[in-house]
Amino acid sequence: MALTNHQVLLAARPNGIPKATDFRVEGRAVPELTDGQFLLQNEFVSLDAGFRNWMDEGSGDNVLPAMALNAPVQGLTLGRVTDTRHPNYPEGSAWMVRSSWEEYSLLDGSDFVTPVPDTGDVPLNYYLGILGDTGLSAYFGLMDHGQPKAGETVLVSAAAGAVGSIAGQIAKIQGASAVGISSGAAKCERLKAELGYDAVIDRTVGDLSTVLQSACPNGIDVYFDNVGGPMLETVLNHINEGARILCCGAVADYNEKNPTPGPSNLFQLVTKQARMIGFLTHTQADRYPEARAQMSQWLKEDKLKSIEYMLEGIDSVGAAFSDLFRGANFGKTIVRL
Amino acid sequence: MALTNHQVLLAARPNGIPKATDFRVEGRAVPELTDGQFLLQNEFVSLDAGFRNWMDEGSGDNVLPAMALNAPVQGLTLGRVTDTRHPNYPEGSAWMVRSSWEEYSLLDGSDFVTPVPDTGDVPLNYYLGILGDTGLSAYFGLMDHGQPKAGETVLVSAAAGAVGSIAGQIAKIQGASAVGISSGAAKCERLKAELGYDAVIDRTVGDLSTVLQSACPNGIDVYFDNVGGPMLETVLNHINEGARILCCGAVADYNEKNPTPGPSNLFQLVTKQARMIGFLTHTQADRYPEARAQMSQWLKEDKLKSIEYMLEGIDSVGAAFSDLFRGANFGKTIVRL
Repeated sequence: MALTNHQVLLAARPNGIPKATDFRVEGRAVPELTDGQFLLQNEFVSLDAGFRNWMDEGSGDNVLPAMALNAPVQGLTLGRVTDTRHPNYPEGSAWMVRSSWEEYSLLDGSDFVTPVPDTGDVPLNYYLGILGDTGLSAYFGLMDHGQPKAGETVLVSAAAGAVGSIAGQIAKIQGASAVGISSGAAKCERLKAELGYDAVIDRTVGDLSTVLQSACPNGIDVYFDNVGGPMLETVLNHINEGARILCCGAVADYNEKNPTPGPSNLFQLVTKQARMIGFLTHTQADRYPEARAQMSQWLKEDKLKSIEYMLEGIDSVGAAFSDLFRGANFGKTIVRL
Repeated sequence: MALTNHQVLLAARPNGIPKATDFRVEGRAVPELTDGQFLLQNEFVSLDAGFRNWMDEGSGDNVLPAMALNAPVQGLTLGRVTDTRHPNYPEGSAWMVRSSWEEYSLLDGSDFVTPVPDTGDVPLNYYLGILGDTGLSAYFGLMDHGQPKAGETVLVSAAAGAVGSIAGQIAKIQGASAVGISSGAAKCERLKAELGYDAVIDRTVGDLSTVLQSACPNGIDVYFDNVGGPMLETVLNHINEGARILCCGAVADYNEKNPTPGPSNLFQLVTKQARMIGFLTHTQADRYPEARAQMSQWLKEDKLKSIEYMLEGIDSVGAAFSDLFRGANFGKTIVRL
């Protein structure tokens, strides 16, 4: 009897912030394998705000095409091979893939597929979070491009998000002062208590420029920007000479139908001899082992914590994605299948 | 009898593009020197668009305070010491200073003062242009930050300006393809014929995005941005993976009373793993000798040309500054006193 693969389809193009009802689940029979294929039973679905980018009509770019309506939603999953007719993907081996939000992925290795080191040292789901693309975004962003020095100030937006929750911790490990921007008193409290942020800004309270001034009395040396939008403009007015602005995501823009104007004060980059650095993480796949070794070491030494927001079952994937944009999550959002 | 120092004063804050009548010349007696002072007789005034930045009310920043009305206009000059009571500034020695548009500058060495190597190898005025801040902006921008590789495409805005006219030539020396943006058929023709640009875009003709596509068929690897404004947004849509955007000036913004919105497509920096790099040149003064040695070598080898737009007399300084913004100049704008 054929297996049934429950998939999350794009039922409607989100109008602004995605709602759970923009998605629906359908079951389809898993086809027979042909030569060169393998079947991955997904154990976890990773929810990543960046994929919102390709949900709009005509939103394709050099990374992904625009998603089709009523087709499976593109995203990251982690699973194990349960059937294989491909020599490189043996039964039982674990992989992370950029495929679809679904229970079973029929693959041939031509998509973005990376092996997951299944050593049993850490829970497998760490490879979607702290040891996956989001944790490694924090790592590569700060270590390659931000390079905070001891005593410098690192500001992190969406500080309670999957990337931000790691970025702040790495900034601290590097001896910098970490300041986080988040929303709501509860999350701000957790950022200080659980993740060691030196100061936290609740963006729902007060004038951001004024609050930044007092939270970053020595100015901002590194801005880990997960948000984009008007917040970037405000931050630019507080950067120090030689500041590095790491462009990792732009949650503020993903949901806008019309492009929002950029910061009107980019000339700050000139007068402060600062730079804005755009970077992607999945293009660095050959360096994942090196980065994971360092992160795992920090985990062992209790310098780094994995923070996850975990939901259960394929039916909760759409809601979990929506939660990302409402800021309901704290840490990396994952659905266990 | 006291010498008379003719100075250019800021008669009115420019409303948009500066007019010659925003400035007026007044003569004042040169005071007696006191200990620690020296008198520079300026031989050349350098006209630099960037100084427009500090002509507006409340425009001061970490580089300069806002200029005062009816006070001498801040700017760069080059002259020789004619009287001295300071041991480090002997009579006859040549210096470039950030002081005022004036015939005589009474100085004590506390301002930005750099020695001009008066070897007789090149005209002294080269040290305001090709071997001065503008030429060295092109040099440091491209060599430190742009680092064009052979076969890459370097796009230069305000390509006929003081910085652009050098940037395109250095791009060619590095083996890259140079594409310039300028205004008017005459200047575009000169860019190709005299400066070796591979392709030139007249920004007054046609849709920029379409023209960019055909002038840069392999995309843009380095954008030497002397302009800012809406042109940057268009260019961002044509950059290659790993592009470097050098932020040198923002002529488009200097004359705006209200800040113009920035590019709405900064997310291109992320998907293209590109970076925007702001830089200043006067902070690199200790590296001027090294940079000048290389540039002089290229001049000797006829790989590099100095292009100047030279006017005469203190009375023409205001008009020369206005010419910069009307694009009347070709190459570095200088007034000989």
